[in-house]
Amino acid sequence: MKVVKFGGSSVADATQIKKITNIIEADKKRKVIVVSAPGKRFPDDTKTTDLLIRLGELVQKQESYTAIYHQVIERFSLMVEDLGLQKVVLSQIKSTIEEAISKVSAREDNGMDTLKACGEDGTAHVLSAYLQNQGHASSYVNPKQAGILVSEQPGGALVLNESFEKLYQLREREEILVIPGFFGYTPEGKLVTFSRGGSDISGSIVAAGLKAELYENFTDVDSVFCVNPAIVHQPKQLTSLTYREMRELSYAGFSVFHDEALIPAFKNKIPVCIKNTNNPDGKGTMIVSERAEGNDHVVGIASDTGFLNLYVSKYLMNREIGFGRKLLQILEDEEISFEHAPSGIDDMSVIIRDHQLPKDKEAMVVDRIKRELKVDMLDIERNMAMIMLVGEGMNQTVGIASKAAAAFRDANVNIEMINQGSSEVSMMFGVKSDQLSTAVQSLYKAFFEVS
Amino acid sequence: MKVVKFGGSSVADATQIKKITNIIEADKKRKVIVVSAPGKRFPDDTKTTDLLIRLGELVQKQESYTAIYHQVIERFSLMVEDLGLQKVVLSQIKSTIEEAISKVSAREDNGMDTLKACGEDGTAHVLSAYLQNQGHASSYVNPKQAGILVSEQPGGALVLNESFEKLYQLREREEILVIPGFFGYTPEGKLVTFSRGGSDISGSIVAAGLKAELYENFTDVDSVFCVNPAIVHQPKQLTSLTYREMRELSYAGFSVFHDEALIPAFKNKIPVCIKNTNNPDGKGTMIVSERAEGNDHVVGIASDTGFLNLYVSKYLMNREIGFGRKLLQILEDEEISFEHAPSGIDDMSVIIRDHQLPKDKEAMVVDRIKRELKVDMLDIERNMAMIMLVGEGMNQTVGIASKAAAAFRDANVNIEMINQGSSEVSMMFGVKSDQLSTAVQSLYKAFFEVS
Repeated sequence: MKVVKFGGSSVADATQIKKITNIIEADKKRKVIVVSAPGKRFPDDTKTTDLLIRLGELVQKQESYTAIYHQVIERFSLMVEDLGLQKVVLSQIKSTIEEAISKVSAREDNGMDTLKACGEDGTAHVLSAYLQNQGHASSYVNPKQAGILVSEQPGGALVLNESFEKLYQLREREEILVIPGFFGYTPEGKLVTFSRGGSDISGSIVAAGLKAELYENFTDVDSVFCVNPAIVHQPKQLTSLTYREMRELSYAGFSVFHDEALIPAFKNKIPVCIKNTNNPDGKGTMIVSERAEGNDHVVGIASDTGFLNLYVSKYLMNREIGFGRKLLQILEDEEISFEHAPSGIDDMSVIIRDHQLPKDKEAMVVDRIKRELKVDMLDIERNMAMIMLVGEGMNQTVGIASKAAAAFRDANVNIEMINQGSSEVSMMFGVKSDQLSTAVQSLYKAFFEVS
Repeated sequence: MKVVKFGGSSVADATQIKKITNIIEADKKRKVIVVSAPGKRFPDDTKTTDLLIRLGELVQKQESYTAIYHQVIERFSLMVEDLGLQKVVLSQIKSTIEEAISKVSAREDNGMDTLKACGEDGTAHVLSAYLQNQGHASSYVNPKQAGILVSEQPGGALVLNESFEKLYQLREREEILVIPGFFGYTPEGKLVTFSRGGSDISGSIVAAGLKAELYENFTDVDSVFCVNPAIVHQPKQLTSLTYREMRELSYAGFSVFHDEALIPAFKNKIPVCIKNTNNPDGKGTMIVSERAEGNDHVVGIASDTGFLNLYVSKYLMNREIGFGRKLLQILEDEEISFEHAPSGIDDMSVIIRDHQLPKDKEAMVVDRIKRELKVDMLDIERNMAMIMLVGEGMNQTVGIASKAAAAFRDANVNIEMINQGSSEVSMMFGVKSDQLSTAVQSLYKAFFEVS
């Protein structure tokens, strides 16, 4: 049994709905479908969810919202028409939206969530109705019936463990089930949404709960690239990745979706396949728990800017038990999370995401470190970029560090920082932001072009 | 004005005393001399300090000590004779030793320190007497007169800041001053010794206090080697080093003496020169605060075994603020000091000196980490070795990492860990202990043989 998730662009209009219906029909194992809200049909189009959010804001401000309301309804009425569905489908969607609007104007704390959820909910109704029209046994399953129980954090719900057992019972159902993504219900029955892009989370939760043999995530790209296509033109595509590789690649601003969405699937060892709705026969990218042996090479290069290096030096630092811990404690007190903290004998560097240490916090943090740790020198270097080479087993492969370092040298890029050995599947390099592209291009050449 | 320190082998017998007298005469600026206790005259010889320690132990156990007592006296009587000094010099030394012995048997808490100090004290008396015989104005200056004030920690005294001002007054003295190394006095007038090898500490303190233009440290090696001679046969010698380079090199079990002895000199920016008593015209090694520009290369390779890697991994570790800090806190609670703690996304490695985590402590520490941090995986890998490339400015030089990594690859050694960027003057690599020599030899070849 496979759980299949379709993203916004895959359910943008009737044509797409027909496409995904073909995809569903192409494989009898595609029994449970999770859908997003209708996305963009053309570049300047607006996603349904964004329309719903604007609608909600107008309602909150008690301003006229009829125009946007009709835009939303139109998106669904067009689909219903073009797919030749009965009017009842649309009126059902309408009433759900109107109910949500009244919750918003009544200032109910989950009012906005309820309204935002209408996009996915509507898609699910449309799709199940269309599947029925095509002669398939199919039902819309509301997340509450499905058993997606979540914590009460509007806009950022977390799944509760009870959900998985409850979801497993859906296996008994014979027909094709269509579940709207993006939201769940608290044990008290309150609708709450996940963070944005939450349909990926829903799909992954459902796949985990149903112990699916595969979680197919249909989106609008053919597969995951081995490097940021904005830096390297038409880079190689990844046919297979392990969870750990995906995690590391996603980390440095690299991935088709947020890796955390996949955690429920990962934890239950459900293989994940990323495919393109517009090219369903393409191989896609498989994300598995373990890759076959003898594959110890670099599979991808992740990179991201927006890091800073907080450098401190203090004579005889390494004789001072607890220095490093105290420094990290100060950051923790100030709610600054750090990425890495390589330390030398008399020096320590802490790599932090730029936004974690805004200018206004900086002065105070610097002052605390100077005062409490009596450092000889403190320097903050912003505009740092991180590059991560990722691949299972690579850290046990002689010569990879050498190949990488040579690539930096050939690009005439100085390596500000190397962090290898902490992770078994990655090697991290820090460079000046303005040298990121040159460095990544050179690394791509070294690891993916010549062999 | 130069402060000159002579080590044990440089004052082992009359011949050596004559040698160092020539050295002192060769440069009028050599006005203040700090001496060790007579060291070995031949390979199987026993150092005077070791004789004194045995003597003290016998006294404590109330066993007969006459044999060893005579051995000690003989070392000095031979010198006094061979140098043609007056008997009074010897009787003075004798009485000092006997006084010390009585302190030991009287169980005075600084008894042993007082006895251990007799070696240096005797040498100072002998040398100043001989300098006088050679027609020089010279005096023996006891550390108390000199103003070397220390904390009351028998066998591990620390210098008190008052000392430096007091010492500066010695500049007014016209004659050549000979000060015994290895001990000082508490403000209450109690004799206390520094840690073993303390004459280096004394020399450095005196040089700092007198604001000497140079602190010459005469020992029995021509200079500092750029790599451990036990690993590379007849390696290049270092003519110049900066304090920071010396620190980093000393760190990984590498140096002619413990770098901390030089701290007083370093802190006062007194240049240090390491020379060979048996080859005084040799260039030696200069240790300075800053090296001339345009010298951004590797000056030395330090290496040491006896490290372990405590590796933990936990899914989503990097989303958990305070994880790293908590791990280091546990180590701190157990009084385990760590060397480095590189961290990845879901992994963290802590490099620790083997002896810091004895087997008996291991179980408990592992248990705490598993219980308190709920890690998914914990692994301790002993038999790790660290290799450090040292050189000012090297981390700003493109290509050094590449050259180093290539050297490891050529030696077919896998790099278990790289730590670069924390220190500006070094780059650290972790390898399996049994591969240390191969790796270091390959690095030496890359950085010191080919150019």
